[in-house]
Amino acid sequence: MQQDINTAVQIVPDKLDDVRALLSQLPGPDHAATTAADTREPALTKPPGALGRLEEIARWAAGWQGRHPATADRVIVRIFAGNHGVTAKGVSAFPADVTSQMVANFVAGGAAINQLCKTFDAHLDVITLDLDNATADFSEGAAMSESETVAAFRTGMAAVDPLADLLCVGEMGIGNTTSAAAIGLALFGGEAEQWTGPGTGVAGEALRHKTHIVKTAVTRHTTGGSNALEVLAHLGGRELAAMGGAVTAARLQRIPVILDGYVATAAASVLWAVNTGSLDHCLAGHVSKEPGHRRLLDKLGLEPLLDLGMRLGEGSGAALATAIFRAAVACHAGMATFAEAGVSSAES
Amino acid sequence: MQQDINTAVQIVPDKLDDVRALLSQLPGPDHAATTAADTREPALTKPPGALGRLEEIARWAAGWQGRHPATADRVIVRIFAGNHGVTAKGVSAFPADVTSQMVANFVAGGAAINQLCKTFDAHLDVITLDLDNATADFSEGAAMSESETVAAFRTGMAAVDPLADLLCVGEMGIGNTTSAAAIGLALFGGEAEQWTGPGTGVAGEALRHKTHIVKTAVTRHTTGGSNALEVLAHLGGRELAAMGGAVTAARLQRIPVILDGYVATAAASVLWAVNTGSLDHCLAGHVSKEPGHRRLLDKLGLEPLLDLGMRLGEGSGAALATAIFRAAVACHAGMATFAEAGVSSAES
Repeated sequence: MQQDINTAVQIVPDKLDDVRALLSQLPGPDHAATTAADTREPALTKPPGALGRLEEIARWAAGWQGRHPATADRVIVRIFAGNHGVTAKGVSAFPADVTSQMVANFVAGGAAINQLCKTFDAHLDVITLDLDNATADFSEGAAMSESETVAAFRTGMAAVDPLADLLCVGEMGIGNTTSAAAIGLALFGGEAEQWTGPGTGVAGEALRHKTHIVKTAVTRHTTGGSNALEVLAHLGGRELAAMGGAVTAARLQRIPVILDGYVATAAASVLWAVNTGSLDHCLAGHVSKEPGHRRLLDKLGLEPLLDLGMRLGEGSGAALATAIFRAAVACHAGMATFAEAGVSSAES
Repeated sequence: MQQDINTAVQIVPDKLDDVRALLSQLPGPDHAATTAADTREPALTKPPGALGRLEEIARWAAGWQGRHPATADRVIVRIFAGNHGVTAKGVSAFPADVTSQMVANFVAGGAAINQLCKTFDAHLDVITLDLDNATADFSEGAAMSESETVAAFRTGMAAVDPLADLLCVGEMGIGNTTSAAAIGLALFGGEAEQWTGPGTGVAGEALRHKTHIVKTAVTRHTTGGSNALEVLAHLGGRELAAMGGAVTAARLQRIPVILDGYVATAAASVLWAVNTGSLDHCLAGHVSKEPGHRRLLDKLGLEPLLDLGMRLGEGSGAALATAIFRAAVACHAGMATFAEAGVSSAES
C-alpha cells in the first residue's frame, strides 16, 4: 500500500492485517492550509481568540480538508445499523426487532436524526449490515469472524461520499452499548461498572446483569491475547466495524469527521488503539449521558463540543454539532478584516 | 398597569418605578402548552429522556410561546450598541471609536454575528443608543440619569419584533465588560477580582487597573443605598438598559429569549434582582470565557447551552445556541410516534 491518497482510497482490505497496514500510513493535515488559516485569523474583526473553539475548528477543518478556507457545503450523516446476538441475554430495554423498525423510521423520515438533518441541511444515508443475521453472542464466543469484520469495515469505507466536506458517523443497533462497553473495558481496562451504562434504559438488576455480561465476555476474550482489531472482531458489531471503515476512508479522502456518542466513539477507539494518530481528523460531537462515554473521550484526548444530556445515538449528537462546524467555517471565511472594515485594532 | 398581556405590551414606562411595577406582574408559562408537550414527548420514537436538554427546551418553548408545538420560524437577533464614559480611564484594549466602527461592520455584513445569522437564518438588527454621547464615567458619578435609563429601556422594548418565535439579545460597547463587572459586584457581592476579566484583552497591570476602577465605583455607589434598577442607572450603559427592556418586552409578548454572554447576562441580572422570576423565559446561550460570566450564571441558576471558550459578545454565543433551539423544536414537532412508525416500545 502507498502513501499516496488516491492510491490509498482504492485499497480494499481483505484481512485485519490489511486494515492495520492502512491505519499505519494515514495522511496528516495540510500545513499550507493551516498556515493560511493562521495568517487570516488575527486579521478578522474581533479580539484575538474571542471565538474560542470556533477558531480552532476553522483551522483544523482547513488542515484536514487540505484547503483554505475550509468549506461546509456538503455535510453528510451516515447511520450504520447492525444486530447483535448478545441481545439474547436480555441486555437491552428494547427488543432486537427495534433495529429494523428504526431503520424503517429513518427511511420514512420519522426519527430524531431526520429532523436534525433537515434542520442543519445534512444528507442522510442509512446503511444496513445484514440485519437478518445478527452477529454471534459475544458472551459465548467471537461476535464476528475476521472476514465478517473486514467486510463490514469495507462497507463503511464505501459509504463515504468523496465530495463531502464533513462526515458524521452514527449507528443503530439494539444491544450495541453492551458491545461498546466491552470494547472500552478490553482496550482501556478498569472495571466493567465504569464502562457499562443504561443504554436505552436498563437499570437496577438488569443493569447489573448487563455489566456481568460485559465483564465475563471481556475476561473470556482477553485470556487469548489480543490486539485492537481482534477486540473489534470478538466484541464489536458489524456497525462498529463499518464506522471504523468510514472514519478511515474519510481520512484518506480528506474529509473531517464528527463522531457521535458512546458506540461511535468506541468504534473509533479501535482505530486509535492501532495508531493514536488515527482520530486526529475527528471531533467528538458531544458527550453522551451514557456514563462510559466521558471516560472513553478522556482516554482518547477528545473534548466534546456539546454536553446536553443526550443519549440517543443514531448520529444525533454529531448532527447537532455540525451547526458548530458550519458556524466556525462561516465566521473564518466570511468575516471582514480590520483593514477591509476600517476598524481600529487593539491599542498596543 | 394590568395583568393582561396585550395591555402590558403597550405600557410605556416613564420612571424606574414603572419598570419595577412592570417586572412585578410578568405573565407565567402557558400550562396547556406544556401539558401538551408532556403528553407528546413519551410517544416519540426514542427512549424516554434520550434527547436530554432538547426535550426540556421543546417543552419550555411551548410554555413561553403559549402554543404547542413550539415553532422556530422567525428567529431574531438584536444587538444594542452604546458608548461608555469609563473608557476614559483606560479599561479596554480597544479605543472607544471601535463601537461605532463595529456598528458599521454589522451593517456591512462583515462581523462574526453576520456570518452566524446567515448560517442559522436569524434576522439581525442593530440598535444604536446615542453613540456620539457616551454615558458619564461611572467611576466618577452615575453613568445615566433616571430618564436616560428609562429611555434606553423603552428603546429595547420597542426593538422586539412581536412576530418573533425567539429573541437573542447581544451588545457592542467598548468598556461594557467593566460595567457588567460593576453590576455583578454591586448586586451579588464578593470581590472585584471575581467579577472583572480581560474583556477585549486587558491583562497584567491594565487588568489590575480595571479591577480597581470597578471596586471604587461600586464602593462609591453602594454607600448611598440602592436597588437593582438604580444599580443599572449608576453602573450600566444604555445598551444594558436596552437589553433589559428587550428581555422584558419579549416576556410580555410570549417570545422566549436566549441571552448572550457576560454583558447581556449582567443586564438580565438586574431584572432578576427585581423579581427572580423575570428570566424564566430565558436560556443562557453559552458561558463566556470572561471569568465573571460563570459566576453570574450560577447566581441566576442558569445552565449554559454551550461552553466553547467564546468571549466576543455581539450576540454571537446566543446566535450559535439558536441551532440547539431549532433542533429541539424540530425533533419534538417532527418525529413520528411509536404508533405512527410501527416501532415497538420498551419492554416492561
